[in-house]
Amino acid sequence: MTVHERAFSRMGAQLTGSAIRQMGILAAGRPDLISFAPGYPDPDTFAWDAYRDIADDLLRAREADLLQYGPTRGYAPLLEALVPRLRRQGVACTTDDLLLTTGSQQALDLVTRLFVDPGDVVLVELPTFTGAIAAFRSAGARLVGVRQEADGLDLAHLDEVLAVERANGARVKFLYVIPNFQNPTGGLLSLAKRRALLDWSRRADVLLVEDDPYGDLWFPDVTRAEDTRPIKADDDEGQVVYLQSTSKTLAPALRTAWVVAPPAVIERLDVAKQSADLCSSTLDQRLVLEAITRGVLDAQLPRLRETYAHKRDVMAGALARECTGLASWAPPRGGFFLWVQLPEGLDTRAMLPAAVEANVIYVAGAPFFVDGSGHHALRLAFCAASVSRIEDGIARLAGVIRTAAASGRPVPPAGP
Amino acid sequence: MTVHERAFSRMGAQLTGSAIRQMGILAAGRPDLISFAPGYPDPDTFAWDAYRDIADDLLRAREADLLQYGPTRGYAPLLEALVPRLRRQGVACTTDDLLLTTGSQQALDLVTRLFVDPGDVVLVELPTFTGAIAAFRSAGARLVGVRQEADGLDLAHLDEVLAVERANGARVKFLYVIPNFQNPTGGLLSLAKRRALLDWSRRADVLLVEDDPYGDLWFPDVTRAEDTRPIKADDDEGQVVYLQSTSKTLAPALRTAWVVAPPAVIERLDVAKQSADLCSSTLDQRLVLEAITRGVLDAQLPRLRETYAHKRDVMAGALARECTGLASWAPPRGGFFLWVQLPEGLDTRAMLPAAVEANVIYVAGAPFFVDGSGHHALRLAFCAASVSRIEDGIARLAGVIRTAAASGRPVPPAGP
Repeated sequence: MTVHERAFSRMGAQLTGSAIRQMGILAAGRPDLISFAPGYPDPDTFAWDAYRDIADDLLRAREADLLQYGPTRGYAPLLEALVPRLRRQGVACTTDDLLLTTGSQQALDLVTRLFVDPGDVVLVELPTFTGAIAAFRSAGARLVGVRQEADGLDLAHLDEVLAVERANGARVKFLYVIPNFQNPTGGLLSLAKRRALLDWSRRADVLLVEDDPYGDLWFPDVTRAEDTRPIKADDDEGQVVYLQSTSKTLAPALRTAWVVAPPAVIERLDVAKQSADLCSSTLDQRLVLEAITRGVLDAQLPRLRETYAHKRDVMAGALARECTGLASWAPPRGGFFLWVQLPEGLDTRAMLPAAVEANVIYVAGAPFFVDGSGHHALRLAFCAASVSRIEDGIARLAGVIRTAAASGRPVPPAGP
Repeated sequence: MTVHERAFSRMGAQLTGSAIRQMGILAAGRPDLISFAPGYPDPDTFAWDAYRDIADDLLRAREADLLQYGPTRGYAPLLEALVPRLRRQGVACTTDDLLLTTGSQQALDLVTRLFVDPGDVVLVELPTFTGAIAAFRSAGARLVGVRQEADGLDLAHLDEVLAVERANGARVKFLYVIPNFQNPTGGLLSLAKRRALLDWSRRADVLLVEDDPYGDLWFPDVTRAEDTRPIKADDDEGQVVYLQSTSKTLAPALRTAWVVAPPAVIERLDVAKQSADLCSSTLDQRLVLEAITRGVLDAQLPRLRETYAHKRDVMAGALARECTGLASWAPPRGGFFLWVQLPEGLDTRAMLPAAVEANVIYVAGAPFFVDGSGHHALRLAFCAASVSRIEDGIARLAGVIRTAAASGRPVPPAGP
């Protein structure tokens, strides 16, 4: 045992990688591989010329703040620019309710540190975002899953789960929910259930952590902006900690996201962020601010909705052609993801080596489930691949599923 | 009590802000205030034109990776570019030994999570960097201080402290040390003591965390590059986790720093970073890489050494004129900071309101000490202020100290 191994913390000794990030690494080595794995925005949608102009203007102005340490809370004019945008979505707030973070992943991490002691319970959807699972577990949370229905969280199951946990003396800290175009299911939580969840939160005295990276990406053929109204918009009592991001609308590289919460929460998150990374990239924040004030973001949104709605159509069409009878799915009303169920008995994790062999890749369902289920589901991201590659990739995937189904048993893992 | 207050974790309930960041906020509201508080680089040293050219070239090329999610480990060509630079400093490594972080503050945070369970002991210098103290405490570490001498850590005291902690059954996880131009003292650890510390680390079976943001900023009149040789350079057995950054040499806004450690440590830090912020700003990393490959960084270094050596001279000269007999200090051989001791009985924290009133500000000594001492010390940063403001600021400060000393007792805090 090395000096490090002897020194690892309990958490440090247990650290293991994310399934999605590992898929990304796998994909990187195979140029012909068609990846439906990571939820990367289509780089053709990036506003390249606008960023070039903005960067040139900013660097030409030689304002010291641009390259200096910035406030931990975030660049003040950016926070000010977010306030009216949030108000338009129904979220009344001031800059005192805002903290800028290095992507929403950092927001999840800081919120977890603020609320979770080892052994505390965090409630999550079945399935839910793996990055959130990792953040919650890294603080020692015990994760308890709540089932989803076609219109989102199963409220009867939520009550049941809470009752069981409370009866066992658990400290239930918050419910983590992704109402808009959920990761990984693509599902949309109904407005009635949003209101019911807020009532539940008050009644149960349990916070909601509402993660909303995809809310702007509703597909106009089947969804209206009003359908994506944040739960936070109706939160008069500070029950909701709300997360937004520009990673899916402007660019993930500009690590810029924010938390909306009561000032008492924001002040403590600010202190936690001081020791986590002191401040987020100042240059990134300035690029995002200019993209907002110059109208780049607002010009992007209709284009993005159209692009991703079209890609969803292409993928759903290819699935209908190739996979009818082999799998089931419901085309999403927004976002990046299409969730596919294979027949029970098929194991999408065990099927992965065959998929890689066929040069197509997805994320297996199991890592999204905190209850050990999900083995016959998989997540397809239609956001990054081109239209022709989506069609080719689904054809390849159908071949892999057919082979697995024909073998009448789970495909065994390749190699020793 | 609100729903949040009921839900805070033990750590969340205790979060309080950093003294240095609070000084920064104070300074922001008073344009005539001369700040010697935060260790901000002189923005006149930033390579504005180079960054403008680089940003333009990068954004013109429209390479998808520039604005996409990047690998958690860091942009591979940047890691590759760091390897020969580290080798020139004597640190033999490959990209397997490297992890890129969102500033060194994140490196401190991730290293702490990897090694520290609540109650574990971390050894630190008396005094040491407040950001490190905050990161260690946020994981529940118990911090134990080791005294410093003119040439750095007091090795006899180190042995003594370790013996006491071990006798009490403490798990001592690592010793945190800033050998080059220490924050806050500006001190330089002697080469003999560096070798002795490495021996101690092996013998004691305690890791070293070596933080080196200022190593490149040695002042040519009194220091040679060899005097700053990292402890890591002689570490054949993986005893040292080594941190470097471009925040003080290129620009703090480009949140780009890195950890050098054995692959088994790096792999776990990578997983911890996945849940902390997924990846650092890709654009920042590309700007830093180009600044390295185009020779911008190497061209900066001699200029920075000259600029900061000159500012040190100006501040030391002003102190000699204004404060001889009132205070004692030793002009540093590199870096950003000048450490000043006032007579016992003066309290530099209590003196702060009078200093703000006189439009000059510093960081009081006490927050740098984990043992409750340091009340009559203060840290002056000579890096950010202009030469004329350094001279004015020291004259103002001398007036404040004279008044405090004449009153024969600590200056009481202003207001209720």
